Amino acid sequence: MPVVFILVPISSLIALGFAYYFFKQMMGHDEGTDTMKKIASHVRKGAAAYLRQQYKVVIIVFAVITVIFVILAYGLEVQNKWVPFAFLTGGAFSGLAGFFGMKAATFASARVTNACRTSLNAGLKLAFRSGAVMGLVVVGLVLLDISAWFTVLNIFIPAAEEGLKLLTITATMLTFGMGASTQALFARVGGGIYTKAADVGADLVGKIEAGIPEDDPRNPATIADNVGDNVGDVAGMGADLFESYAGSILATALLGAAAFSGAGLVTQYSAVLAPMLIAAVGTLLSIVGIFMVRAKEGASQKELLKSMGLGVNTSAALILVLSWVVLYMLQLPNYWGIWGSIVVGLLAGIIIGQSTEYYTASAYSPTRMIAASSSTGPATVIISGIGIGLISTAIPLGIIALAIALAYAFSSGFSFDVTSLNMGLYGIGIASVGMLSTLGITLATDAYGPIADNAGGNAEMSHLGEEVRKRTDALDTLGNTTAATGKGFAIGSAALTALALLAAYIEEVKIMFVQFLDRPNELINGVPAYQAEFIDFIHHYDIHLMNPLVIVGVFVGVLSVFLFSGLTMNAVGRAAQQMVAEVRRQFKEMPGIMEGTTEPDYARCVEISTRGAQKEMMLPSFIALLIPVIIGLIFGVAGVTGLLVGTISSGFAMAIFMANAGGAWDNAKKYIEEGHHGGKGSDNHKAAIVGDTVGDPFKDTSGPSLNILIKLMVMASVVTVGVAVSYSLF
Amino acid sequence: MPVVFILVPISSLIALGFAYYFFKQMMGHDEGTDTMKKIASHVRKGAAAYLRQQYKVVIIVFAVITVIFVILAYGLEVQNKWVPFAFLTGGAFSGLAGFFGMKAATFASARVTNACRTSLNAGLKLAFRSGAVMGLVVVGLVLLDISAWFTVLNIFIPAAEEGLKLLTITATMLTFGMGASTQALFARVGGGIYTKAADVGADLVGKIEAGIPEDDPRNPATIADNVGDNVGDVAGMGADLFESYAGSILATALLGAAAFSGAGLVTQYSAVLAPMLIAAVGTLLSIVGIFMVRAKEGASQKELLKSMGLGVNTSAALILVLSWVVLYMLQLPNYWGIWGSIVVGLLAGIIIGQSTEYYTASAYSPTRMIAASSSTGPATVIISGIGIGLISTAIPLGIIALAIALAYAFSSGFSFDVTSLNMGLYGIGIASVGMLSTLGITLATDAYGPIADNAGGNAEMSHLGEEVRKRTDALDTLGNTTAATGKGFAIGSAALTALALLAAYIEEVKIMFVQFLDRPNELINGVPAYQAEFIDFIHHYDIHLMNPLVIVGVFVGVLSVFLFSGLTMNAVGRAAQQMVAEVRRQFKEMPGIMEGTTEPDYARCVEISTRGAQKEMMLPSFIALLIPVIIGLIFGVAGVTGLLVGTISSGFAMAIFMANAGGAWDNAKKYIEEGHHGGKGSDNHKAAIVGDTVGDPFKDTSGPSLNILIKLMVMASVVTVGVAVSYSLF
Repeated sequence: MPVVFILVPISSLIALGFAYYFFKQMMGHDEGTDTMKKIASHVRKGAAAYLRQQYKVVIIVFAVITVIFVILAYGLEVQNKWVPFAFLTGGAFSGLAGFFGMKAATFASARVTNACRTSLNAGLKLAFRSGAVMGLVVVGLVLLDISAWFTVLNIFIPAAEEGLKLLTITATMLTFGMGASTQALFARVGGGIYTKAADVGADLVGKIEAGIPEDDPRNPATIADNVGDNVGDVAGMGADLFESYAGSILATALLGAAAFSGAGLVTQYSAVLAPMLIAAVGTLLSIVGIFMVRAKEGASQKELLKSMGLGVNTSAALILVLSWVVLYMLQLPNYWGIWGSIVVGLLAGIIIGQSTEYYTASAYSPTRMIAASSSTGPATVIISGIGIGLISTAIPLGIIALAIALAYAFSSGFSFDVTSLNMGLYGIGIASVGMLSTLGITLATDAYGPIADNAGGNAEMSHLGEEVRKRTDALDTLGNTTAATGKGFAIGSAALTALALLAAYIEEVKIMFVQFLDRPNELINGVPAYQAEFIDFIHHYDIHLMNPLVIVGVFVGVLSVFLFSGLTMNAVGRAAQQMVAEVRRQFKEMPGIMEGTTEPDYARCVEISTRGAQKEMMLPSFIALLIPVIIGLIFGVAGVTGLLVGTISSGFAMAIFMANAGGAWDNAKKYIEEGHHGGKGSDNHKAAIVGDTVGDPFKDTSGPSLNILIKLMVMASVVTVGVAVSYSLF
Repeated sequence: MPVVFILVPISSLIALGFAYYFFKQMMGHDEGTDTMKKIASHVRKGAAAYLRQQYKVVIIVFAVITVIFVILAYGLEVQNKWVPFAFLTGGAFSGLAGFFGMKAATFASARVTNACRTSLNAGLKLAFRSGAVMGLVVVGLVLLDISAWFTVLNIFIPAAEEGLKLLTITATMLTFGMGASTQALFARVGGGIYTKAADVGADLVGKIEAGIPEDDPRNPATIADNVGDNVGDVAGMGADLFESYAGSILATALLGAAAFSGAGLVTQYSAVLAPMLIAAVGTLLSIVGIFMVRAKEGASQKELLKSMGLGVNTSAALILVLSWVVLYMLQLPNYWGIWGSIVVGLLAGIIIGQSTEYYTASAYSPTRMIAASSSTGPATVIISGIGIGLISTAIPLGIIALAIALAYAFSSGFSFDVTSLNMGLYGIGIASVGMLSTLGITLATDAYGPIADNAGGNAEMSHLGEEVRKRTDALDTLGNTTAATGKGFAIGSAALTALALLAAYIEEVKIMFVQFLDRPNELINGVPAYQAEFIDFIHHYDIHLMNPLVIVGVFVGVLSVFLFSGLTMNAVGRAAQQMVAEVRRQFKEMPGIMEGTTEPDYARCVEISTRGAQKEMMLPSFIALLIPVIIGLIFGVAGVTGLLVGTISSGFAMAIFMANAGGAWDNAKKYIEEGHHGGKGSDNHKAAIVGDTVGDPFKDTSGPSLNILIKLMVMASVVTVGVAVSYSLF
C-alpha cells in the first residue's frame, strides 16, 4: 500500500480535531440570560428525545438487516463476508456524525444569540464555526472509516491475484455506504416528516384554534417546531451528505480499481487512492476556508454573503489546483483528462446552486411572478409555482446530463467505445468526488442556517433589544440564502453520486461475472480479460434498451419516485394530525398552560411527533429498500439496471421540482410581507400563505427525501447483487 | 398481396358510411326553440372560428416541415422519398377527422337537448350516436389512409428483394404517423390551452369582476368557454387517439415485417396484415356495439352506465374471440402466444380505466379524503390532491410494466434472448393494437361527454323545464364518468403506442444498418442476416445503459417532460390574461352588453383565445419537435434511444399524475356541493374550489398534452433517423 495513503487518516484526525476545537470554543461562550438558557435547554432536550426515539427504531432495523446480510453472506454465500460488518460501521459512523452535529447546533443557538449582544462578527463567527462542527465531523468520520477499512482489508484480503485484490477491497468497502444510506433514510425522511408535522401541527392548533402567536412558549408544539429545524436541516442534511460523500469516494475507488485493472498494481493503487486523497486535501482546504469567514461590524447583507462566499470559493479554487497536483503526483495515465472531469464536477455543482438561487430568490423574476399571481387568489399562486418549479428542473437536469457526458469524455479521451468505458465511468465518479471535495465547508454553511434561525427565535422569545435582533435577523436572512443553494447542491451531488454508484453496481456484477469465468488476468487480443469481458457481459445481462426487462425496470423506477413522493406528502398530513390531537389534549387537561402558570409538556409533543414521523416513514422506506430486491429477484440484473436509471433520472427531476417550487413559494410570501402587492395581512398575502404551506412538505419532506431514495435504491441493489445474479426468475 | 387485405378498405368504407348515416340521422332532428338554435349557432360559429385560426397556423407549420423533409429526402438523401407525401396525408386525414368530429358535436348538442324533451332514451341515443360520428370517422380515415398507402407502395416498391420489400413499405408508412402527430400537437396542446384559458378568463372577469353568473350569455367569453369543451375534449381527444390508432397499427406492421423477415413472404405478409385486420374487425364490432347502446325511459344513472358498458364490453369480448380467428386464419407461427399479447393489451386498458375511476370518483376513499381535507383550508386540499395524484400513478405504471413484460413474453415464447427480440417487440406492438382495436366505440363514449355537457348547458341557458334538465343532467353526469376513464385509456394507449413506436424506431435504424451492410437475405448460422445483425447492431450503436450517451438521453428525456409540463401550465395563465383583457374591453366599449341590448362579440373572444392558445403552444411544441433532432445530431442513435425511454416513462407517470389529481379535485368539489362537509358556499367548498381550479390545467392542458409529447418525440425521431445516423457528432 502506497505510503501517501497516510494523508487520509491524518486529515481525518485533523478534521475531527478542529471539530472538537470549534465545539470547545463554542461551549466556552456564555448562553446569556436565564430565559435564553431555558429556551435553549428545551430545544436541546427535544432534540435528544428525538434522537432517542429514532435510535430505538434504527437499532431494530439495523438488527433485522444485519441478520439478513449474515444469512446472505454466510448462509447462501451470495454476498461478501465483510458486508454485515461494513454495513454496521457505516451506520454507526453516520449516526455518530448526526449526534455530534445536532449536539453542537443545539448548544450553539443561545450562545450565538448572546454573542450578537456583543457584535455581528462575533455572532457570525460563532454560528458558522458551530456549523463547521457538523461539516468537519461528517468528513472526518467518513475518512476515518475509509482509512480503517482500507487498512484492514489490505491486510486480510490475500495478495495472490493483485489485479483482483483491489477490486475485492473496493467492492467490499462500497457496502459500507449501505449503512450510511440506511441511517440517512431515517434521518432525512423521518426528520423531514417530523419537522413539517410539528410545524403544521403547531400552526393549526396554536395559531388557528387557540389564537396565540407563532413561537409562543405556551404552545406545547413550539419546541417541537424548533427542534424540527435541527432534526430536518442539521441532522437530515448531514446524514444525506455523509452518504453522498462516502458513496462518491467509495464508488470512484471501485471504478478506479476496475478501470486500471490491467495497468499494473502501482497505477491501480493510484487510481483507487485518487478520490480518497482529493477528499483528504479538500478537507484540509475546507478548514482553511472556515477560518476565512468573518464579518466587519455593521456589515451589509451583501458583505456577509461575500465573507461566506470567500471561504467557500477559496477552498474550491485551491482544490482545483491541488487536485491536479494530486493526480500528477500519483502519475495516473491521462491525468489531465481526469482532472478535467473533476473541474466538470465542481462547475456543475456551482451552476446548479446558482440556478437554485435564481428560481427561488425574490430578487429574480420567477419568484416575483408567483408573488404577482397572488392578486388572482391562491389557485393561481399554486399554478404558477408548480409551473415554475417544473421549468426550473431544466437547467439542473441539462447541466447534470452535460456533466455526465463531459466527465466521461475527458477521462476516456473522448472515446465512447466500450473499450474505454471503464475509464469514462471513472471520470463520472471522480467528477462527483470533485463536486463534494470541499464538503467540510459547504456543509458548514448549510448547518449554519438552522443555527442562525434558532438564534433568531431565541432572541425573539427572550425579548432582547432591537440591536441584537437586527443582528440575528441579518444572520438568519443569510441562512435562508445558503439553505436554498445548499439544497440544490445536496440534490445535484446526490444525483451524480447515485450515477457513480450505478456504475459501481455494474462493476459489482462484472466482478461476479469474471469470477464465474475464472480468468481475471488473461489477455484477450492484447486487452486484459477484465476489460474484454464487457462485451460478453452486456450480452449475458442484456442491459440494452430494447430488452423488455430493462424497460420494465425503468417504468418501475419512475413508479418508485412518484409513489414515494406521494406517500411522503401524505405522511406529513397524517403525522400533523397526531400532533394536533396531542396539543388539544394538553390544552384541555392542563388549563394552566394558557394562563402561563403551567409549563406545557414539550418533550411529550416531541416524542409524539417523533414517533409519528418514524411510523409514517416505514411504508415509503420499505418501498425504497424492497423494490430493488424484488425487481432483482424477478427481472434480474437487466431489470435492476433499468430500475436504477429510471429512479435516478426522474427522482432527480422530482427533487429539484419540489425543492424549487417550495423555495419560490416561501420567498414569494416573504416578498409580499416586505410590502409588495398589498403586504402583510392583505388578500394577496393570504393567497401566498397557501402557496407557502403547500411548499413546506415539497421542500422539506418529499424533495430532500428523494435524495436518499435515489442513493439508497442503488446501494440496496449493490449489496443484494448476488441475489439478483443467482436467483432471478428471468 | 393477400386478398384478405381487402377487408381493411371495406371496413374503412363501412365505418365512414355509418358515420355519415349517424350524422344524417342526427341532422334530421329538430334543434328546438329559437333560443336553443341561437346558442347552438354561437358555439358552432366559435368552433369554426377556432378551426380557421388553427388551420392558418397548421398550414404554415406543415409547409415548413414539408420543405425540411423534401430537403432531407431529395437533397441530403437521408430520408425515404415518400416521407413528405406520407407526412402530408397523415396530417390532412387527421385534420379532416377533427373537422367532421367537431362539426357533428356542435350540430348535435341542441338536438340532444331537444330530444330530451321527448325521452331520456332518445337523448342518450342521439348523443351517443353523434359521438360515434367522431369515433367512426377517426378509425375510418386511419384505415382508409393505410389502405391507400399499402396498395400504392405495394405497386411502386420493387419486389426484387421480397424480405426487404415489406420492411421498406411498412417503414415508409410509419412516417404517415408524423403528420398525424403534428396535427395532434395543435389540436391537443393548442386545444388544451384554449379551453382552460377561456374557462379561467371567463370566470375571472365575468363571475368576479362583473358579478354575473356562469354561462350567462352577456359574458363575451361564455361561448368561448363552451367552444373549449368541443375544442379540447372532442377535437383534441380525437386527434390524440387518431395518432395512437395509426401509430400502433403502423408500428406493429413494421415490427411484424421485421420479426418474420426470414420466415418467407407469405408469413411476413400475414404478420404485417395482422394489426390491420384486427383493427378492421374491431371497427365492425364497434359498429355492432354502438347499436347496442340504448336506455329505457326513467333509467337510473347505473342503468345508463350499464347500457353504455354493454356496448363497449360486447365489442371487447367479441374482438377477443375474433382476433384469435384472424391470427389462426393468417397461420402465423405461435398464434396462441401472439393472441396472448392482444389479451394483455386489452386487459391493461381495462385495468387502467378502472384505476382512474377509483382515484377520481367520489364514490371511493381517495377523492373523499381530499374532500375531507378541505376542513383545514385550501393548502391541505392541494397537498392531499398532489399526494393522491402521485400515488395514483403506481397502478397504471405497474400495469403497463407488467403488460410490456407479458406481451413480450407471450409472443417471444417466454424467451428474453436477443434472438427472439423481434418476436417479443411484435408482441408489444400487437398488445397496443389490441388495446385500441375497438376504438370506434370507446372514442364514441369519449366524444359523447362534451356533447351531453353542451346539451345540458343549452337546456340551462334556454330555461327549459325541470323534466328536460333532469334528463340532460343524467346524460351529463354519465359523461363525467366516461370522460375520466376515457382519459386513463388515452394515456395508457399513448404509452403503449409510444413503446411500439420506439421499437419501430430501432427497426428503422436497423434497416439503415442492414442496408449499409448490404446483405439482407444472407443466412448467418441458419438465422437470417436481418436477425443475426442485431448483436452487431447493439455494438455499433451501443444502446446499453452504461453508455453515457444513453444516460444523457434519459436525463434530457425526463427534462423534456418536466419542462413541457411547466410551460403548458404557465401558458394557460398567460393566455387567460389575454382573454381577461378582451372581455374587459368589450364591457367598456359596449355598455349595451351588460344591459342585455347589445350582443357581445363572441367570435372575437373565440379568436383572441384561439390566437393566444396557438401562440402559447409554440414554445412547448418546438421543444417537442426539436429536442429529438438536436439530441440525434449531438448524441446519435444511443442518445435518442435514451431520450425516448426517459420521455415515455416519466411522461406517462406525469400525465397520469396530472389527470388523476385534476379529476379528483374536480369530483371532491362536486362531492362537497352535494352537501358533504358543509356543502355549497361553505369555507370547505371555497377551499375545494381552489383545488378544482388548480386541477383545470392539470387535467385538461398539461396532462393530456403529454400524451402527444411522448408520441411526437418518437415520431420526430423516426422521421429524422437518417440525420442521427449520418451526421451525429458522437
